[in-house]
Amino acid sequence: MMQPPPAEPGMREEEVDTPALLLDLDAFEGNLDAMAALLAEHPVKLRAHAKTHKSPVIARLQMERGAIGQCVQKVAEAEVLAWGGIPDVMVTNQVWGARKLARLMALARISRVSVCTDDAAQVAAIEAAAEAAGVRIPVLVEIDVGAARCGVEPGPPAVELAERIAASRHLTFGGLQAYHGSAQHIRAPERRTETIAQAADAARRTVEQLRQRGLDCPVVGGAGTGTFRHEAASGVYTEIQAGSYAFMDADYARNEEAPPFRHALFVLATVMSAAQPHIAVVDAGHKAIPTDSGLPLVWDRPGVSYAGASDEHGKLTVEDPSLRPRLGEKLRLVPGHCDPTVDRFDWYVGVRKGRVESLWPVAARGAMA
Amino acid sequence: MMQPPPAEPGMREEEVDTPALLLDLDAFEGNLDAMAALLAEHPVKLRAHAKTHKSPVIARLQMERGAIGQCVQKVAEAEVLAWGGIPDVMVTNQVWGARKLARLMALARISRVSVCTDDAAQVAAIEAAAEAAGVRIPVLVEIDVGAARCGVEPGPPAVELAERIAASRHLTFGGLQAYHGSAQHIRAPERRTETIAQAADAARRTVEQLRQRGLDCPVVGGAGTGTFRHEAASGVYTEIQAGSYAFMDADYARNEEAPPFRHALFVLATVMSAAQPHIAVVDAGHKAIPTDSGLPLVWDRPGVSYAGASDEHGKLTVEDPSLRPRLGEKLRLVPGHCDPTVDRFDWYVGVRKGRVESLWPVAARGAMA
Repeated sequence: MMQPPPAEPGMREEEVDTPALLLDLDAFEGNLDAMAALLAEHPVKLRAHAKTHKSPVIARLQMERGAIGQCVQKVAEAEVLAWGGIPDVMVTNQVWGARKLARLMALARISRVSVCTDDAAQVAAIEAAAEAAGVRIPVLVEIDVGAARCGVEPGPPAVELAERIAASRHLTFGGLQAYHGSAQHIRAPERRTETIAQAADAARRTVEQLRQRGLDCPVVGGAGTGTFRHEAASGVYTEIQAGSYAFMDADYARNEEAPPFRHALFVLATVMSAAQPHIAVVDAGHKAIPTDSGLPLVWDRPGVSYAGASDEHGKLTVEDPSLRPRLGEKLRLVPGHCDPTVDRFDWYVGVRKGRVESLWPVAARGAMA
Repeated sequence: MMQPPPAEPGMREEEVDTPALLLDLDAFEGNLDAMAALLAEHPVKLRAHAKTHKSPVIARLQMERGAIGQCVQKVAEAEVLAWGGIPDVMVTNQVWGARKLARLMALARISRVSVCTDDAAQVAAIEAAAEAAGVRIPVLVEIDVGAARCGVEPGPPAVELAERIAASRHLTFGGLQAYHGSAQHIRAPERRTETIAQAADAARRTVEQLRQRGLDCPVVGGAGTGTFRHEAASGVYTEIQAGSYAFMDADYARNEEAPPFRHALFVLATVMSAAQPHIAVVDAGHKAIPTDSGLPLVWDRPGVSYAGASDEHGKLTVEDPSLRPRLGEKLRLVPGHCDPTVDRFDWYVGVRKGRVESLWPVAARGAMA
């Protein structure tokens, strides 16, 4: 069941029912503008990652500022975007299974859809699905640029797979997917620089080898909020796949040279218990604000720490009892990791200058298939 | 939006779309029966915790085996159970806010609802809401038996709050809530024993002091899957609030003396990438199988480890490449923590002897308000 919205337009922020997913619209729009300005200096395009926001509304706001399309991780996310009118959606992931591929091909009738692969058997399955649906789609080869997760080795194995795609009647070779996920969260800027330089070298070498075999590589995609300035300046990446930049989270802010974006996403929580002098308990535990990338921060309340999350309780501690939030008080929490936090809610509550301005559904909430 | 069901009754397990929340019905029913048998030896009742299962269907199956009602943490969960026909629901938590309290009182027209408190101002707010709705509900005093989260101190502070409840025209004193959450996950059995002995002593002392003041304490509630045998044998607890026992998870199984229940809950996942000899990547990362209590286990596949979770990727590693799961293979994963895992899905897929037998909605999925 979809949960009812926790607010109505016009309400004051203090009236919003909790826990709620709050979007500070001034900060959010500022982040979208800042990314557009930063990328304008480079010959790259933004293909923003919708696994963060899961919203056709936000996708459209990104595209109004120059993004050429959207990325997703799952077919079910691609459906929500395509059904919501987004004209260009790339699945930056492998898709396995005839039912999922048939759903993806059905979308190719209403939007440009593309998908990644790292296996010849997957290429054959995608070709069969495209043929059955009577469509033709671009397929990218994912190369492992150091994250040791998905992707074939750069160089000859990637070229071989690209040739197989290009030789498939209902597929076109769409380019290289060269995302280094774990690099996003490396704390030291010089180590991030070095890691992405190596990834860019691997991509560049593969593009050259493709060219030697007569294959043009229209796209080299990758990058996230932690590293995009390096990929943008590399001269080899053509599409930047950042997502978190729109919201920012506590984990990205912990990088030594944090990205130039403001915290725009919060979980609004209420103090529901304050029975002990050094403890206040809020109604947002890790079911509301996942802790996979660390605990949340308490916004704008020096001396108050979010010290522990259980399922439905967030335990705030203070060293000085006079700083303890009072029973019933509403507090903004900065998520440790924005992506899974968004996916816990059905609604964005957009606020500006202390008032609720908009309600947008997290339309691809739970779209994991 | 609610996601479509990933299966239909009659399908083979291998045909279920992934990721999916799989319930092994034989193991699940065995766990329900085992708990009923274990508690039959003691003068306590089961009030199973629905924060784990979030399903009126499962609540009913527990009550058919003797459970006297259900616990929840949130008003929104209470609504789903009461609307689903469950006649007795206790909110084992504090509730703050006039809107939430009004919703809770509305439920008192169709089910017996009760709620906890640890603050005199909350008692006044609950009384006002009950008066406005023209209902009368039981309110329990939560005491802190060692978890240092919610709850007043045992003894005089608890008695004072109980007297305040009893003196409220639309409230009755419902008893003591004496749950020790952190004790559930203490690994060494002797330390769990000792911790619950202290909790039971605190509750017993408070019950005696209530009696001295002329207040009968009809309920002492608490306990979870990690400790319930101690509370059941204590002679002071009257209601056992275990929830995870129905499913079991990897974290409870890591306790040195694990509870006598079988793993019944799994996330079914598909290998979507196997491009490297020691790695297979499944389509269930921490958005599908939260890692707050540790990584999942790969079921029935010795030599294969779930080594890391990102948002939508689960990285499996093998030391021996011949054991690597193949592309497209479906694997059962045992969640590290069943409660947040259930809350990631819209559907239970009930399987028996390799076939899908039932689909039940996770009706209170996302019910955090």
